[in-house]
Amino acid sequence: MYGELVIINGGAHPALAQEIADCLQTPLHGVEIKKFANENIYVQLRSSVRSRDVFIIQPTCVPVSDSILTLLILIDTVRRDSAGRITAVMPYFAYGRSDKKDQPRTPITARLMADLITTAGADRFLTLDLHASQIAGFFSIPGDEMTTRILLRDHFRNKDLSNSVVVAPDEGASKRARKFAELLDLPLAIIEKRRRDAHTEALTLIGDAAGMDAIIFDDEVDTAGTVCNGAALLKASGARRVFLAATHPLFSPPAIERLQSAGFDEIVVINTVPVPAEKMLPNLTVLPVGSFLAKIIGRIHEGRSVGELINE
Amino acid sequence: MYGELVIINGGAHPALAQEIADCLQTPLHGVEIKKFANENIYVQLRSSVRSRDVFIIQPTCVPVSDSILTLLILIDTVRRDSAGRITAVMPYFAYGRSDKKDQPRTPITARLMADLITTAGADRFLTLDLHASQIAGFFSIPGDEMTTRILLRDHFRNKDLSNSVVVAPDEGASKRARKFAELLDLPLAIIEKRRRDAHTEALTLIGDAAGMDAIIFDDEVDTAGTVCNGAALLKASGARRVFLAATHPLFSPPAIERLQSAGFDEIVVINTVPVPAEKMLPNLTVLPVGSFLAKIIGRIHEGRSVGELINE
Amino acid sequence: MYGELVIINGGAHPALAQEIADCLQTPLHGVEIKKFANENIYVQLRSSVRSRDVFIIQPTCVPVSDSILTLLILIDTVRRDSAGRITAVMPYFAYGRSDKKDQPRTPITARLMADLITTAGADRFLTLDLHASQIAGFFSIPGDEMTTRILLRDHFRNKDLSNSVVVAPDEGASKRARKFAELLDLPLAIIEKRRRDAHTEALTLIGDAAGMDAIIFDDEVDTAGTVCNGAALLKASGARRVFLAATHPLFSPPAIERLQSAGFDEIVVINTVPVPAEKMLPNLTVLPVGSFLAKIIGRIHEGRSVGELINE
Amino acid sequence: MYGELVIINGGAHPALAQEIADCLQTPLHGVEIKKFANENIYVQLRSSVRSRDVFIIQPTCVPVSDSILTLLILIDTVRRDSAGRITAVMPYFAYGRSDKKDQPRTPITARLMADLITTAGADRFLTLDLHASQIAGFFSIPGDEMTTRILLRDHFRNKDLSNSVVVAPDEGASKRARKFAELLDLPLAIIEKRRRDAHTEALTLIGDAAGMDAIIFDDEVDTAGTVCNGAALLKASGARRVFLAATHPLFSPPAIERLQSAGFDEIVVINTVPVPAEKMLPNLTVLPVGSFLAKIIGRIHEGRSVGELINE
Amino acid sequence: MYGELVIINGGAHPALAQEIADCLQTPLHGVEIKKFANENIYVQLRSSVRSRDVFIIQPTCVPVSDSILTLLILIDTVRRDSAGRITAVMPYFAYGRSDKKDQPRTPITARLMADLITTAGADRFLTLDLHASQIAGFFSIPGDEMTTRILLRDHFRNKDLSNSVVVAPDEGASKRARKFAELLDLPLAIIEKRRRDAHTEALTLIGDAAGMDAIIFDDEVDTAGTVCNGAALLKASGARRVFLAATHPLFSPPAIERLQSAGFDEIVVINTVPVPAEKMLPNLTVLPVGSFLAKIIGRIHEGRSVGELINE
Amino acid sequence: MYGELVIINGGAHPALAQEIADCLQTPLHGVEIKKFANENIYVQLRSSVRSRDVFIIQPTCVPVSDSILTLLILIDTVRRDSAGRITAVMPYFAYGRSDKKDQPRTPITARLMADLITTAGADRFLTLDLHASQIAGFFSIPGDEMTTRILLRDHFRNKDLSNSVVVAPDEGASKRARKFAELLDLPLAIIEKRRRDAHTEALTLIGDAAGMDAIIFDDEVDTAGTVCNGAALLKASGARRVFLAATHPLFSPPAIERLQSAGFDEIVVINTVPVPAEKMLPNLTVLPVGSFLAKIIGRIHEGRSVGELINE
Repeated sequence: MYGELVIINGGAHPALAQEIADCLQTPLHGVEIKKFANENIYVQLRSSVRSRDVFIIQPTCVPVSDSILTLLILIDTVRRDSAGRITAVMPYFAYGRSDKKDQPRTPITARLMADLITTAGADRFLTLDLHASQIAGFFSIPGDEMTTRILLRDHFRNKDLSNSVVVAPDEGASKRARKFAELLDLPLAIIEKRRRDAHTEALTLIGDAAGMDAIIFDDEVDTAGTVCNGAALLKASGARRVFLAATHPLFSPPAIERLQSAGFDEIVVINTVPVPAEKMLPNLTVLPVGSFLAKIIGRIHEGRSVGELINE
Repeated sequence: MYGELVIINGGAHPALAQEIADCLQTPLHGVEIKKFANENIYVQLRSSVRSRDVFIIQPTCVPVSDSILTLLILIDTVRRDSAGRITAVMPYFAYGRSDKKDQPRTPITARLMADLITTAGADRFLTLDLHASQIAGFFSIPGDEMTTRILLRDHFRNKDLSNSVVVAPDEGASKRARKFAELLDLPLAIIEKRRRDAHTEALTLIGDAAGMDAIIFDDEVDTAGTVCNGAALLKASGARRVFLAATHPLFSPPAIERLQSAGFDEIVVINTVPVPAEKMLPNLTVLPVGSFLAKIIGRIHEGRSVGELINE
Repeated sequence: MYGELVIINGGAHPALAQEIADCLQTPLHGVEIKKFANENIYVQLRSSVRSRDVFIIQPTCVPVSDSILTLLILIDTVRRDSAGRITAVMPYFAYGRSDKKDQPRTPITARLMADLITTAGADRFLTLDLHASQIAGFFSIPGDEMTTRILLRDHFRNKDLSNSVVVAPDEGASKRARKFAELLDLPLAIIEKRRRDAHTEALTLIGDAAGMDAIIFDDEVDTAGTVCNGAALLKASGARRVFLAATHPLFSPPAIERLQSAGFDEIVVINTVPVPAEKMLPNLTVLPVGSFLAKIIGRIHEGRSVGELINE
Repeated sequence: MYGELVIINGGAHPALAQEIADCLQTPLHGVEIKKFANENIYVQLRSSVRSRDVFIIQPTCVPVSDSILTLLILIDTVRRDSAGRITAVMPYFAYGRSDKKDQPRTPITARLMADLITTAGADRFLTLDLHASQIAGFFSIPGDEMTTRILLRDHFRNKDLSNSVVVAPDEGASKRARKFAELLDLPLAIIEKRRRDAHTEALTLIGDAAGMDAIIFDDEVDTAGTVCNGAALLKASGARRVFLAATHPLFSPPAIERLQSAGFDEIVVINTVPVPAEKMLPNLTVLPVGSFLAKIIGRIHEGRSVGELINE
Repeated sequence: MYGELVIINGGAHPALAQEIADCLQTPLHGVEIKKFANENIYVQLRSSVRSRDVFIIQPTCVPVSDSILTLLILIDTVRRDSAGRITAVMPYFAYGRSDKKDQPRTPITARLMADLITTAGADRFLTLDLHASQIAGFFSIPGDEMTTRILLRDHFRNKDLSNSVVVAPDEGASKRARKFAELLDLPLAIIEKRRRDAHTEALTLIGDAAGMDAIIFDDEVDTAGTVCNGAALLKASGARRVFLAATHPLFSPPAIERLQSAGFDEIVVINTVPVPAEKMLPNLTVLPVGSFLAKIIGRIHEGRSVGELINE
Repeated sequence: MYGELVIINGGAHPALAQEIADCLQTPLHGVEIKKFANENIYVQLRSSVRSRDVFIIQPTCVPVSDSILTLLILIDTVRRDSAGRITAVMPYFAYGRSDKKDQPRTPITARLMADLITTAGADRFLTLDLHASQIAGFFSIPGDEMTTRILLRDHFRNKDLSNSVVVAPDEGASKRARKFAELLDLPLAIIEKRRRDAHTEALTLIGDAAGMDAIIFDDEVDTAGTVCNGAALLKASGARRVFLAATHPLFSPPAIERLQSAGFDEIVVINTVPVPAEKMLPNLTVLPVGSFLAKIIGRIHEGRSVGELINE
């Protein structure tokens, strides 16, 4: 239906791009990406992608601005080289938290990102666990947002979960945590954070965790402040073991310091962004997502249902 | 800066349009809107709006399809009559719940609505309490989403709220309820609904309400099933008085029957959509929003900050 | 060339959708379309249409606003489910009479409709006997407007047409009637309607019908006032038999009452919109168009000339 | 409301541009328009139009391709010089007859023209007596289509019109002619042209003209074949005097030869396109439209209703 | 991948269109292109191009305005006939010199042309030796700009080029000339033109040509003033033989007169535009480009790399 | 004409933003710009810019990706805060050298940048000395490209320029250098660089510099390799003093090291990008451009001709 499959590594996560290419038994397409001394990004494909079905693998992770611009420039390159179809594969989509005007006189950067990607020339997008599912509606092009919840569910199903609770670390995470609780057939608790005055804020555990194993569930681990405070509250509330499960391991400073002292029994994340060796904590489990993404890409390429992959 | 102010009644809520016009001391602009025998909607302005600054007041409420198409046709009419600027004022924005693909192979109708309004020719939008704030990002045109929370807060501040709790009737409402709880400096509880099997679902109160006055808070009252079940749960959990506060009084069948037997001490809503006489329950309070909208429209017309109106 | 053929019933005319699907030996694609209590329309495809060549059958007939919005929402659904190509098949296109500003300060709703359909994501349109052929030019997407005149011609060719005349019921229909007269090699007469004062209007027969069989020809029968008045004038002018031939049987009230007493020898229409049982007058002949549309759709799907079908 | 008024002569009809500028008491804005030896058109404004309200006067008449391209290049020039608003004033709009696919595999050039003008950067259009009013709907930008019928009516009102008839020279002109007949309170007749075989076609007069003064009414006089044949038919049908009234005096060859021998008592047209001296037949009256256009432009510039000008 | 290949002759250069069709062993697709008496251009395809992969051959050469409008109308025709893909093949692209605002208050007509072609509905462009390569970036659609330098190089390689120099006739041509010099491994010289006063300008040869064979190299020969003056300067500077090499033989008046007396040893151009018999000077060599274009078109049609054709 | 003037510092060049604001006697508008720990850029305006005429000062200089994204996010912020008009002021426009496909399978990033800025919502652009003037044509929005050549001319006019020559450091700079030479009424020389083999390239001076003062002129000083090699060649060719004049002082590594040892008598640049203290070489003169930009902005704001400022 479309031209031959082409996988391009955008440079932000070479290991994942390779993982996907290996699963699809397709070599990564040759591309030179470099930065000139004036910091302008240069891209050149080593061979033509004319009429091909091109997937660019690029989580828009650290260095964020460079990852985004490289993705946009790659799309332009591939489009002007007359690709048949271009899919921007963003296992992690930056600026997801800028999805509404929480404060006055602010941007909606997530919408801007969707528009920039469309303007550059992408025909489709593919992404995982958006911060809010509404962000998929920011795109005017069609695409697929998939969730890695089932990968995390499979991991936890191997544990003894009798007498456990899933905990949303803040109200924003409650819908997401509830879906995970349902998958594991566990009760739900929610932590509410409220500002007391200019300097202090108080946490309240809404629901029960005493004597239970608690799984804090969120879409990403950024600076880890919220989840580490949550872990402390849960321990203070009498929780037994405390786990942390999340999709995107951003681990922005000082996440690692905080996580090292937070006393989680296990931290489970997905490799949607690279986790460098120095951040590989002993209690950290990184689940690979390459095979899952490869299956999705394969189905998109062949024009087969993606939903069937997860029994939808 | 812009031409003379013009307020047009789109027909879905004449009383509110009149309220706004009265506050702005501007007569409603003459317009004929009718349906032919073949159900095609006909619109004709009685006089020209060339170069004027036009605001069309049209909540997209029942009859929903007609309200939407009338709004679109009005925008086209005003645009082809060479208006200087066109603002679609939708105090209630239909299809807000279709803001993401909760299920596979479904539309994102809220985004579609935003695109249709833009295509018809609106330059701006103005709306109140979207089901999700991300919907504002579905619009490519600029606009203002305002909240009526402060109107509801002012109403409840006149009550004795010592020993009260704000209750989110489901997880989706938890962020919204938390903001209201903060405004009133009250604690928060959340009701979790979970499907047990194909026929039954169980409600759980996460948090505490025993011996307290409870204010269920949501953005709209549709068929009222969730809030009435919530009220029953709260009573069973030992709550004293139970209030219901929400912005949009949709009251879709069988809302009135349910609300009549639910035993709320008071139901407080905003007149963003019409509440016909037969739905005016004895314990229902409808707060007028016309003056608030008029102030916003006045500021938009004059090019003054809207945020200042609510001390942002 | 394109993915597998998919026919979707938009709900406005299930019988015609089934007729088309049967002719194409393709089952109708499963889709759930319903209205919630709040009148929001809900759509979900039962299985994926990814990469398929989708045709949505939806005349925008009564209930008009719902038919239009359902069509738009279906297009969005199918687009976001990654269809390969989407064709909006509208055997009847509403708002065709709003194709120009006959009056000042009115919309051009037919253009608006074309833009809405494009915005929702249709790649093509297919329609029959537009009120004015210029409306095809309102679409920026390519498409096919076909005429059912040959179906009507074939029907009348079976009659004795010696000493007959084709009559345009008003000036707007004169070009259309002339083409039909040419197909049957008959002379043409035109009825002119002119307003005498605020309350009365006079009809004039331009041309001759005395002692002849007259076939009033128009694109649609709406409230039937014009054609019934025309029939009376023709009888008064000495016409023998009077037939009515038209494509779209809208039969808006009080069409049926008028037609019952108008004394047509036969009324011949096409089933571009449903004719409910209670409107099936004894002298009414409804010609099926499903096979014709199926042949067109088949050719579009296969990338073959559609004009060849009618020897163009 | 807008910047200062600027009138630019696009070169296709300098006399009319000057007429308009004189009526508006505004000098024509300096602009150099020339063709290089390689036939590329060159445009340069002599002074800046930054923020001004610019009207470009350019009927797209002979030389048609040059007139169109000059208009497009002028719009681009004015837009890139940062004009505040740009109105394309096309008293005659070419390609009006290519407004639908009368034949298979043809373009809809009138829609294309509307899109080209929009793409070049026009904010509005202003035109007179389009071949079909639907063409106004081809534009996605707002604009004004005005009719010169009242100028023609005023001219004929000075004649003795007792026992007169307005005649549409073909079916396509019947709606237009009927409106003119109504303005003068005269009856209507229509000439039908039908192809008999590959070489001959027959004209039929539908209606009556014997012993009457006949006014053939059309939107334009192109090669004048249709109207001259119509005049002959009318004379043969016993008409007394025969007049010709039309808006656009295209007079394409061999119009002048035909008109010279057609024996019209008077030919009345509007100067929407230039009539060179050698085409000024003795029985030709050219009514000036500059003052009418100037009044419209003045109202558009000041943001006042244009419809009021003609008592709409 | 795409539908069957279709080559359409746009009328500006029938011989080249035929040359291309012959090389591709495809008959030219039947199309009627004519001008009505009112100078409106009429287009009709003789058979359908539905779903086909259409290439329209149309250098936008003399008559320039007609060539451009015919191209645009052809694209609209082919698009509305539902072509699968449309490529505008412009071996010569007019208005290339209007690629920037060299003077204030001028247009950027080359960008306008790119936008017009896109608006009309082209999916791709294919062109040769743009006046500035940046013009390719004026297109928002993908496309291919190829150079004929290798054809010219192959021609000159057959000559004795020991002791030769490539000469840029002005600074604007210096980059282009340098690339040609590199291809032939020859030194470069540049002619600088400077205005002395309102009436005279002086030429300076920067670099050396005494005793050498000189090849003046440019992208086009327009009125030939610059290159003929350059030839005179070179002779005066002691050059031996003087050649002229250029891609586009526009030969606008008075080019032929100038070239006849300029004394070039040979003038070598490419047939990107027609060279009529009366311009076939004895010392003129016209290299055919049809085979080169046919190879490129073949590769585009088959989805194969075009760069490989020239060993990129 | 437009709302009140607002100047926003985009953060890439605070000193220049302040310089401009001071000249316009307008305080910089309050805005918070920061980077979160996850490197997402956050923007919030301290007060509303509703209906204002906003100019965002942001050369897209080092850190380039951040400067670009901050500009785009600022535009979105200002647009969603309902600014009346938004002008992106980019005294230096990055990616200017990616203005064409010099190599196969590369992007045209400069066009992409123009599209991104437009998509974000800018109404206009303002920039200085683009690498190629054609880049202005990459923008679909109107704007102003101005040159700082007259500032550099004024600086050099104060020197003794008898017996001087302007030198283009490569062919790409020859047009630009020639214009500067004309401004100073000096002769021109050009340096040609040609690759000899994979490792060495040879420079040739086309023209004469022996015994003369030479001014190397370019649009920017990036890594300074070309200009320093040029200086060495000029000295070797017998030049007396060697100056360097350029607009944009990028000074990318190892520019400073090279310039320190190149022996220029003076290096003269414009402060379109910041020159940090450690790069302030003793022989470096940085001319301020704030006053020039302020005058342009003032004229744009007031709707007055900008060309008049430089006597165009």
